[in-house]
Amino acid sequence: MLRNFRLVLCQFSAGHDKVANLSKARDLIQQATAAGGQVIVLPECFNSPYSTKYFADYAEEIPGTPETSPSVHFLLEAARNHQVHIIGGSIPEREGNKLYNTSICVSPDGQILKKHRKVHLFDINVPGKIVFFESDVLTAGNEPTIIETPYCKIGVGICYDLRFGEYAWTLSKSEDVGLLVYPGNFNMTTGPKHWELLLRSRAVDNQIFVAACSQARNTSSEYVSYGHSMVVNPWGEILSSTEFDEGLVVQDIDFGVLNENRGSIWTRRHKRFELYER
Amino acid sequence: MLRNFRLVLCQFSAGHDKVANLSKARDLIQQATAAGGQVIVLPECFNSPYSTKYFADYAEEIPGTPETSPSVHFLLEAARNHQVHIIGGSIPEREGNKLYNTSICVSPDGQILKKHRKVHLFDINVPGKIVFFESDVLTAGNEPTIIETPYCKIGVGICYDLRFGEYAWTLSKSEDVGLLVYPGNFNMTTGPKHWELLLRSRAVDNQIFVAACSQARNTSSEYVSYGHSMVVNPWGEILSSTEFDEGLVVQDIDFGVLNENRGSIWTRRHKRFELYER
Repeated sequence: MLRNFRLVLCQFSAGHDKVANLSKARDLIQQATAAGGQVIVLPECFNSPYSTKYFADYAEEIPGTPETSPSVHFLLEAARNHQVHIIGGSIPEREGNKLYNTSICVSPDGQILKKHRKVHLFDINVPGKIVFFESDVLTAGNEPTIIETPYCKIGVGICYDLRFGEYAWTLSKSEDVGLLVYPGNFNMTTGPKHWELLLRSRAVDNQIFVAACSQARNTSSEYVSYGHSMVVNPWGEILSSTEFDEGLVVQDIDFGVLNENRGSIWTRRHKRFELYER
Repeated sequence: MLRNFRLVLCQFSAGHDKVANLSKARDLIQQATAAGGQVIVLPECFNSPYSTKYFADYAEEIPGTPETSPSVHFLLEAARNHQVHIIGGSIPEREGNKLYNTSICVSPDGQILKKHRKVHLFDINVPGKIVFFESDVLTAGNEPTIIETPYCKIGVGICYDLRFGEYAWTLSKSEDVGLLVYPGNFNMTTGPKHWELLLRSRAVDNQIFVAACSQARNTSSEYVSYGHSMVVNPWGEILSSTEFDEGLVVQDIDFGVLNENRGSIWTRRHKRFELYER
């Protein structure tokens, strides 16, 4: 059973001051709640600069304690205070001697529903434009992540996970998954080329709502984010979007549109897995 | 080994007169050859109106004889005359008491390299806009189709096959496949919504050139085609396109761009099939 709800994406830029990053996130979650948000999403790496050289310094254990893991406990408290679901973008996670890029999904009672560890690490080599190797310092997760909410099940991926159609289908195949959420942080090379295309095609191919929450652009940062947080419906139509700057995307999710789409086009049932190679 | 070549797509509208349809195709293949085309593509259902009620009347056996299968032998002769490869859009094929939507791929010596029988039948139900059920009269093929040319291997799908990312990957996974070709015939509902999006996303997801050759728009036809035959590079950029009217798309395929793309973004090797469900 899918139930309509209001989704809010909080686009902002995280800098070097973790306390300031959490304060910014707190303000925006407050605004998102005031705007009627029932599920609230933060950007990838919202507590830390997005750079392999900083991940270790900003990493936290999950759940840790309020002292050792302030970003984690900030999320738990914010969800409980506002009685909302939060898909907590991502933070660098430490477990033993390993680091992960991890999204913490929190219920309104302040409990961790699940955490998603990015399963496809972002290694890219476009010389002179963007060269970045998450795998230098991060370990990949090994589980597709689907959380349950009273509205629908929600599939979760982080940023580069978006480039893999097979992952999106893995999340989407059950009929009670109505939305895919990707905290992300595309850059000024890959963003203009592929961000919108990927979000729209995941929505159309899987006949599902897709939302992505990016960091805002900060041109003085080492890694310049593309922004353009957006929500796309199952027809591939962009329902709402920011541009480069900090801001909220407030979008009502109407599952009547999903039902109409799936009733019109039948690709979900026309797949012929017996013919497909891997 | 990938070798650059010139691809030409011939967009035109097929009507009720089969002889006239073949004559039009002959003219355009002549023009395509004069433009230096080495691989020439025709639209879906180029010898017949696109309607389930006509497929049986226009169907031919493959290869049949020049008398019983004029569309087939027209293709063989045209390829031999011009010494080119032809991906012969599609025609309704009859075998025994079954009908298929079939693309005949012909080598410059006038031999059939392979035929592709559309593997995903186009059944759609958008009331008041487009309701069409190929499965009322057609049988689906059961084989992904890849042909060999001196330039590269080419994966072939027909129209609705384009909606299935898993099929595109099945065609694309071998490194020596450089191009996917889809003869197609989207309509004025699905075309504006999804044609370009699907072509671009198949190119980006699989890091491959994608070409689609449509029928031209004929507003007096029962099925009004969207046109917009186009070629997309592995970055998802539209290299060349028609609009609604009859015409050629002439495009040099430069595999340097494919190599640059695959060297920059590594999604082809980052897939994690062990995590994906089907």
